Amino acid sequence: MKGKFISLEGGEGSGKTTAIHFIQQWLESNNIPYLMTREPGGTPLAEEIRQLVLSERNETVNDVTELLLVFAARAQHLAEKIQPALEEGTWVISDRFLDSTYVYQGKARGGNVEFLDQLADWVVGSNNPDATLLLDVPVELGLERVVQRQHQDRLDKESIEFHQKVREGFLERASADPQRIKIINASLSLDAVKVQIEKQLIALNHAWSGDV
Amino acid sequence: MKGKFISLEGGEGSGKTTAIHFIQQWLESNNIPYLMTREPGGTPLAEEIRQLVLSERNETVNDVTELLLVFAARAQHLAEKIQPALEEGTWVISDRFLDSTYVYQGKARGGNVEFLDQLADWVVGSNNPDATLLLDVPVELGLERVVQRQHQDRLDKESIEFHQKVREGFLERASADPQRIKIINASLSLDAVKVQIEKQLIALNHAWSGDV
Ligand SMILES: Nc1ncnc2c1ncn2[C@@H]1O[C@H](COP(=O)(O)OP(=O)(O)OP(=O)(O)O)[C@@H](O)[C@H]1O
Ligand SMILES: Nc1ncnc2c1ncn2[C@@H]1O[C@H](COP(=O)(O)OP(=O)(O)OP(=O)(O)O)[C@@H](O)[C@H]1O
Ligand SMILES: [Mg+2]
Ligand SMILES: [Mg+2]
Repeated sequence: MKGKFISLEGGEGSGKTTAIHFIQQWLESNNIPYLMTREPGGTPLAEEIRQLVLSERNETVNDVTELLLVFAARAQHLAEKIQPALEEGTWVISDRFLDSTYVYQGKARGGNVEFLDQLADWVVGSNNPDATLLLDVPVELGLERVVQRQHQDRLDKESIEFHQKVREGFLERASADPQRIKIINASLSLDAVKVQIEKQLIALNHAWSGDV
Repeated sequence: MKGKFISLEGGEGSGKTTAIHFIQQWLESNNIPYLMTREPGGTPLAEEIRQLVLSERNETVNDVTELLLVFAARAQHLAEKIQPALEEGTWVISDRFLDSTYVYQGKARGGNVEFLDQLADWVVGSNNPDATLLLDVPVELGLERVVQRQHQDRLDKESIEFHQKVREGFLERASADPQRIKIINASLSLDAVKVQIEKQLIALNHAWSGDV
């Protein structure tokens, strides 16, 4: 049986990377084989592309360039890592995936959604996540959590309005596809977030256990 | 008046980089302001993308990844270098452009031409070269010319059949668009190639002198 593909989404400091650890604990205690990965990135070449996208530079990065780099990394990630793992029954958990592209390069940057749909169609096709956990948190709280970090990348440094659009974009996508995207209230304590995530995983695993 | 955009195309060792020098001499003797550039590349970010595309690596590079990287570099090159130069009346001469993508990633790698057309449409649109000089040479002769080179990149190392498809691909594009693509017989001596290129430049400049 094919593995399940779950993505974690949310703005900066919403707790995606932290949630990955909770999911890992749950998968291990349920003896489910898994692979943890992230976007942009996930393979050596895709991680090099990630560096190009996120690094600070003097040159203005054209919006279309940014969008194509993100999809180039994703094509590599899918072909070389995600699809082979799913085929052999391993679950794949990705820290960000396609929703982030719609939200950052589409909604927040005002990118052309028709072009984005076409790229999504060609590059991702039917390989969209089986489920997505959206960690929702007010922008200020998320940014407060990451402000201590040494390294702020090119996207972290965008304006509050930009991050506000990111949050709205994710919530819009969740209400358009509530079957796949489950909202987690990530303003609560770490323990309360963990409980919500486990509840979702149990429900998903139960729903999927009927799959052949 | 806007500058003119000329691309040089042809397989490995056909003499593109050499031809650039002949064109440069002609532009200087005609007091035409110009910018020499190349693809993939042309801006610092686009040159970094070029490295990703051409460098040898253990990881298999997915065809869609390669295609998207090439277009990501092109979007950046057009926005940050080619378009601004043309706007201020500078001629732009590029060592390779869109035809190479159709030929390498499309014809030779068997890439999906419908996807390529869509990307060309979104990324290049009406910014296609005003003229293209296609340096045509038998595959063996071209490869013989470059075989002494220290450094062979990922595409240089493809099979003879691959390079054969590249040559055919370029000739097919030239016969589909003879108005833009001028074939130069690049099997001849350097002097004879230079004469053909100058003849084409004189004819193009004459034809364009009627433009407003
Ligand atoms: N529910 C929470 N309550 C308090 N602190 C939290 C909570 N979730 C995460 N944090 C802390 O906030 C910081 C950011 O969390 P994390 O790195 O998981 O966010 P992220 O969504 O992965 O951020 P980024 O988008 O930058 O990758 C970390 O220091 C983490 O320990
Ligand atoms: N017409 C010619 N006759 C003989 N030698 C030539 C001719 N044109 C180019 N050469 C030589 O062949 C080699 C390859 O030429 P050049 O670098 O211009 O090709 P290119 O098309 O730019 O190759 P690449 O695709 O690898 O960039 C150089 O050493 C050049 O001096
Ligand atoms: Mg994180
Ligand atoms: Mg060359």
